[in-house]
Amino acid sequence: MPDTLAETRHELAVANRILGHEGVLDAFGHVSVRHPEDPGRYLLPRSRSPELIEPADILEFTLDSAPVVPPTVQMYSERVIHGEIYKARPDVMAVCHHHAPAVMPFCITGEPLVPVFHLGATIGAEVPFWDSLDGFGDTNLLVVKPEEGASLARALGRHSVVLMRRHGATVVGASLRELVFRSIYSCLNAVYLSEGRKIGKVGALTPGEIAMAGAINQIPSVPLRTWEYWATRLEKRGGMPPRRGTTAAARKGPSSRPTTVAKRGPAGRKVKGRRRR
Amino acid sequence: MPDTLAETRHELAVANRILGHEGVLDAFGHVSVRHPEDPGRYLLPRSRSPELIEPADILEFTLDSAPVVPPTVQMYSERVIHGEIYKARPDVMAVCHHHAPAVMPFCITGEPLVPVFHLGATIGAEVPFWDSLDGFGDTNLLVVKPEEGASLARALGRHSVVLMRRHGATVVGASLRELVFRSIYSCLNAVYLSEGRKIGKVGALTPGEIAMAGAINQIPSVPLRTWEYWATRLEKRGGMPPRRGTTAAARKGPSSRPTTVAKRGPAGRKVKGRRRR
Amino acid sequence: MPDTLAETRHELAVANRILGHEGVLDAFGHVSVRHPEDPGRYLLPRSRSPELIEPADILEFTLDSAPVVPPTVQMYSERVIHGEIYKARPDVMAVCHHHAPAVMPFCITGEPLVPVFHLGATIGAEVPFWDSLDGFGDTNLLVVKPEEGASLARALGRHSVVLMRRHGATVVGASLRELVFRSIYSCLNAVYLSEGRKIGKVGALTPGEIAMAGAINQIPSVPLRTWEYWATRLEKRGGMPPRRGTTAAARKGPSSRPTTVAKRGPAGRKVKGRRRR
Amino acid sequence: MPDTLAETRHELAVANRILGHEGVLDAFGHVSVRHPEDPGRYLLPRSRSPELIEPADILEFTLDSAPVVPPTVQMYSERVIHGEIYKARPDVMAVCHHHAPAVMPFCITGEPLVPVFHLGATIGAEVPFWDSLDGFGDTNLLVVKPEEGASLARALGRHSVVLMRRHGATVVGASLRELVFRSIYSCLNAVYLSEGRKIGKVGALTPGEIAMAGAINQIPSVPLRTWEYWATRLEKRGGMPPRRGTTAAARKGPSSRPTTVAKRGPAGRKVKGRRRR
Repeated sequence: MPDTLAETRHELAVANRILGHEGVLDAFGHVSVRHPEDPGRYLLPRSRSPELIEPADILEFTLDSAPVVPPTVQMYSERVIHGEIYKARPDVMAVCHHHAPAVMPFCITGEPLVPVFHLGATIGAEVPFWDSLDGFGDTNLLVVKPEEGASLARALGRHSVVLMRRHGATVVGASLRELVFRSIYSCLNAVYLSEGRKIGKVGALTPGEIAMAGAINQIPSVPLRTWEYWATRLEKRGGMPPRRGTTAAARKGPSSRPTTVAKRGPAGRKVKGRRRR
Repeated sequence: MPDTLAETRHELAVANRILGHEGVLDAFGHVSVRHPEDPGRYLLPRSRSPELIEPADILEFTLDSAPVVPPTVQMYSERVIHGEIYKARPDVMAVCHHHAPAVMPFCITGEPLVPVFHLGATIGAEVPFWDSLDGFGDTNLLVVKPEEGASLARALGRHSVVLMRRHGATVVGASLRELVFRSIYSCLNAVYLSEGRKIGKVGALTPGEIAMAGAINQIPSVPLRTWEYWATRLEKRGGMPPRRGTTAAARKGPSSRPTTVAKRGPAGRKVKGRRRR
Repeated sequence: MPDTLAETRHELAVANRILGHEGVLDAFGHVSVRHPEDPGRYLLPRSRSPELIEPADILEFTLDSAPVVPPTVQMYSERVIHGEIYKARPDVMAVCHHHAPAVMPFCITGEPLVPVFHLGATIGAEVPFWDSLDGFGDTNLLVVKPEEGASLARALGRHSVVLMRRHGATVVGASLRELVFRSIYSCLNAVYLSEGRKIGKVGALTPGEIAMAGAINQIPSVPLRTWEYWATRLEKRGGMPPRRGTTAAARKGPSSRPTTVAKRGPAGRKVKGRRRR
Repeated sequence: MPDTLAETRHELAVANRILGHEGVLDAFGHVSVRHPEDPGRYLLPRSRSPELIEPADILEFTLDSAPVVPPTVQMYSERVIHGEIYKARPDVMAVCHHHAPAVMPFCITGEPLVPVFHLGATIGAEVPFWDSLDGFGDTNLLVVKPEEGASLARALGRHSVVLMRRHGATVVGASLRELVFRSIYSCLNAVYLSEGRKIGKVGALTPGEIAMAGAINQIPSVPLRTWEYWATRLEKRGGMPPRRGTTAAARKGPSSRPTTVAKRGPAGRKVKGRRRR
């Protein structure tokens, strides 16, 4: 029988790397998934940039965002974003918090982010705007206290994406693959809306279109097709996580781990060269 | 004697990958070609992202978009776009449907896309705008019914490109290579028009310039030169399709199919991994 | 003694590839250099995309743009741009004609391109605007007749860059390296001017600053430093041209010439690898 | 015991390459660090593009920007920027001067650069604007005289970033890693501010938010996490500097130095190649 938890950890590492590789995440941002066997827990990597996450970096947390096993590594200070949303939204199976360039103009202006094309309908009819000044006053804008996470979860409500003033966005999904799809296409929707506004007038899709187009990612072939595409792009760039953990090595700085990096990368050319002969 | 059909399937796979590699297509969009020996049929890949298409993924359809052989794989739900255009336009030999970022601002604002530079004249004097709301009301914006495809084909009329409200564009060509040229330069034309409008006033080329510059891609050296360029760029990135089919393997998801991926670019890694053991 | 002509052909191939790699040129555009031993001749590649140029692709022309040896390959139809400028400007040793995205907004709006930062001063105080409609009326916008080339050369006058309405730009230099520097930084200047105009008011540098900053690329270390940078970037991407010609192979399409491509990109690394054994 | 100076030289080379790789620096710009054992000296590379810097390229200067050992190589003409700031700001341990595209629109318009998101608060509440015309009149805009450097240092005052009219920016840090963080996120802040202004109104964070969010990069995990991310990205592209110097070889042009280049990027492949034999 397959080790569901191990598969989930691997898929979470891949989801982190895909969102890094596609430009939704950079040095910051994080992606979590609800525990496949215990809805009262969630899986989230240790504090590390998403594109570098390995299955061995993934920790287990209670919905109060307490580590199940006392960790020897640094944890994300904003993990309450994940825990409080899993608490408030039993239907949510995966969460992504990001600062993608595509959404920042909306986060800093407060201009509404509305769905403007069929795939962008995945953000839903409304994207609420959460402002940490309301209720918390001046902060460093990070969401680190349980009450801050709970407030953000309330702002998210039954929606799929919430913008965070001067900070970024948080996206939820019914699965890791839906989450990755929604995170990427909500960014493209934001870019098209920004660009469209620069050359003309842009309104939202009709309510009927939003409802119907918002369900496109439930067409069976869509998540399969998009995941194959993003995972293959990542794999061709040598970005897939190792199957077996390498935490020890991973703890060291990159320049001290040639072999890890050597496992990924350009060897392919070498082989092609030989095939050509 | 050369196997024309096999050559066409290979060129169609390359055209799909070039348009993915050059940024016209992403996880979505599709490219087809009329059957080289039977004008009553067309070739279109199974439902898969364009940059991953292999000759073995290519299926044969009647102009009613019915598969000639009952497929065991998922088909593109929007294949009627291709079938209905081949039906209405005997002169069209290749069709590309895309959602390129370059055209989206025009698709969501309704601002006219006009030719603004010599190579952009390939879009012709007029780019019609098709709105699914006219005649079909609220939909998920996908073109899946024969009557929707026929309506789009009527909107295209005798033109070369048609914009689709809130969705994307469909481009046609007298050959696969003209189609690739037109798809890429219509996107560049859209980008230059958008950028130009942000700093000043932009009108179209004169009717005479549109007619004459629109024929540049018929200068014999042009399709040769552009195809060599785009194909070499693709090849240098390890993006060329395999010569022999790999459908069976290709059916599996990427993370579970080292061998298929191995046949494409990154093969090396897998092989290397094994050799290293 | 070094073979000056062979060195010049190699450097011209590298210049073509650098300008392709850095995004000034794409499938189109061309770069030439005056013959190192005969000022009455110039060297220009056969009709091929700049990033693919090999020394063996380079042909010799008189200033009337007639090939010195009847070529068996396709020539650029716009070579008169080069010949007529070399005729009119004895001080010009290298010419680049391009359609870089950075300048197109100016070519289609007629907005003035002025130097806005120190390195951008390389374009000089004035960038004339040439309009083919004046004197030639409707054309396909390509500059193919000697009189069209002569008219463009007159518009260029004593300046360093000339914008061509709805088409692109032509840049000149006192050497290939100055030309590459000016082509790249004139594009950056155009980008900064465009972006600056979107958020505020932008005027030109003062006349004194233009004169002094325009001479920065004559500081001995500057052309050395920039050329090393751009050439190394190209080399690391496997983009350096082969030392020995490969015309025969090069004539075939890319998909039918694994060996040529092998000689370019990956093979080069191989050679280096061997050297290091 | 570790060789602190050697480690610092290596880290400075990596910092130069990271800022080149992440797009803050191109052919120009430079990064320095105060001497780890002698606060009266600083380390700065010879005149070379940042992405190519090797430990052996790094020279030692007094705070008057005089080389401690008469160099046989070209020095940056703008080194006084570094020396004068180290003189005026004992708290500054690292300095970066750049012309990043992100800040140029502000440098050429004079529009204020203010912190608009949490990570952007690293620029502080105020970014002064230095104008060489004040006090120096027309120049080539380079900062080469001690008095020009001293004037710039006075303009910087107690701040973290200073914009230079028509030229670029200079950033300071309490360590190389803080400098790299600040250089990258000040550019992202500039991009978001520019983009935000194009679609709506944007003001600065509140003073309280600037103070608190400006300290985020002092959270212990942050510099570790960001440095690992940027260094790994660089390493995966074959961009890490060699551990041992190669100045002699490095003096030659790239096309004439296969071994230097082989020691950089492609070397990794070689190793793999060997493993696979």
